[in-house]
Amino acid sequence: MAVNYPNGKKFHAESHMPKTAKRKDFVYSNRGMTLEEEINSSNEHYLSSGKAVIHKKPTPIQVVKVDYPKRSAAVIKEAYYRQSSTTDYNGVYKGLYLDFEAKETKNKTAIPLSNFHEHQIIHMKRCIQQQGITFVLIRFSVFNRVFLLNSSYLIDFWENTLNNGRKSIPLAFIEDNGIEVAYGFNPRLDYLDAVDKMLERTIK
Amino acid sequence: MAVNYPNGKKFHAESHMPKTAKRKDFVYSNRGMTLEEEINSSNEHYLSSGKAVIHKKPTPIQVVKVDYPKRSAAVIKEAYYRQSSTTDYNGVYKGLYLDFEAKETKNKTAIPLSNFHEHQIIHMKRCIQQQGITFVLIRFSVFNRVFLLNSSYLIDFWENTLNNGRKSIPLAFIEDNGIEVAYGFNPRLDYLDAVDKMLERTIK
Repeated sequence: MAVNYPNGKKFHAESHMPKTAKRKDFVYSNRGMTLEEEINSSNEHYLSSGKAVIHKKPTPIQVVKVDYPKRSAAVIKEAYYRQSSTTDYNGVYKGLYLDFEAKETKNKTAIPLSNFHEHQIIHMKRCIQQQGITFVLIRFSVFNRVFLLNSSYLIDFWENTLNNGRKSIPLAFIEDNGIEVAYGFNPRLDYLDAVDKMLERTIK
Repeated sequence: MAVNYPNGKKFHAESHMPKTAKRKDFVYSNRGMTLEEEINSSNEHYLSSGKAVIHKKPTPIQVVKVDYPKRSAAVIKEAYYRQSSTTDYNGVYKGLYLDFEAKETKNKTAIPLSNFHEHQIIHMKRCIQQQGITFVLIRFSVFNRVFLLNSSYLIDFWENTLNNGRKSIPLAFIEDNGIEVAYGFNPRLDYLDAVDKMLERTIK
């Protein structure tokens, strides 16, 4: 939404954000890390500190042709990206199976459902059936705010869309029903703290 | 071990196996599936029947050069295999995090520890700390027998080797401490049944 003030100056959403959020932005934002890099860095911290074992799955690639040069490593000369049948991240935390997907949006008011794929929804539903803990980490990059949202909400929105429901999840809904993930130094994104909070809510 | 009878006829280990094992061999062996294919096929069955969600992780590949031909899929033109930092399989089963590796050996009396890698051992130890269920599936291909072995045994053997212990796990030890996995039609390898048996033993 491009809104100008009467004096012609541009409206800056950031200046209307809560002070704490602004302070966080000042300290940590614009270091050029993608959400994926932030999660990988947090996972390394969780791993080395013995808090959890969570890894990003490698991108599935169909290898067609490989060269084996003498005295050096095999070189893949022809290969194609394949579609994954799962989410990107899974692992184990205090006996719990965790499974999640991470998405960023530049949108300021909602995350379009087009960021997700049917196979991810199907996979998350299957994991829930097996009592796995599934969620999505969503970054609103303009505000540099990250939320953990229980995937049951995503599944509801997804299925409503099939019945002509709205095609995005509003930020306001995520603020109400998700858990904001705190930015820090190490781990950069303490999303396991948000997982703990999500589990407390579920138990209540 | 090549042993001939006094009459010069070759010794066939298979003819000295228990009858049940022979019958299984007769019905199911030599269909040319690798252990990996058998596990993948079993995982598909578990997935479609809603029994568990377990996937093989893709091989990690470092992509260096990609071509984007017009009107067709991206072609990877240069890439290299990277070493994984985990085991090959993980997933969720009745609320449990499962994590395992699969290995085949042509050896008739033991599986050499050289089949395993340090990063796999480290990963399994970390998963155990998080209360994950970790094990190895070992196929003795000559006999077409598959065993599930709790990875705590593998870790013990691994650490003894560092203190000049033996460099392989004897089949006799695996027969005593592992659980033989039954071959069937669908799932081809019902290793979750062996997981159930392993958990029963642990509880006792």
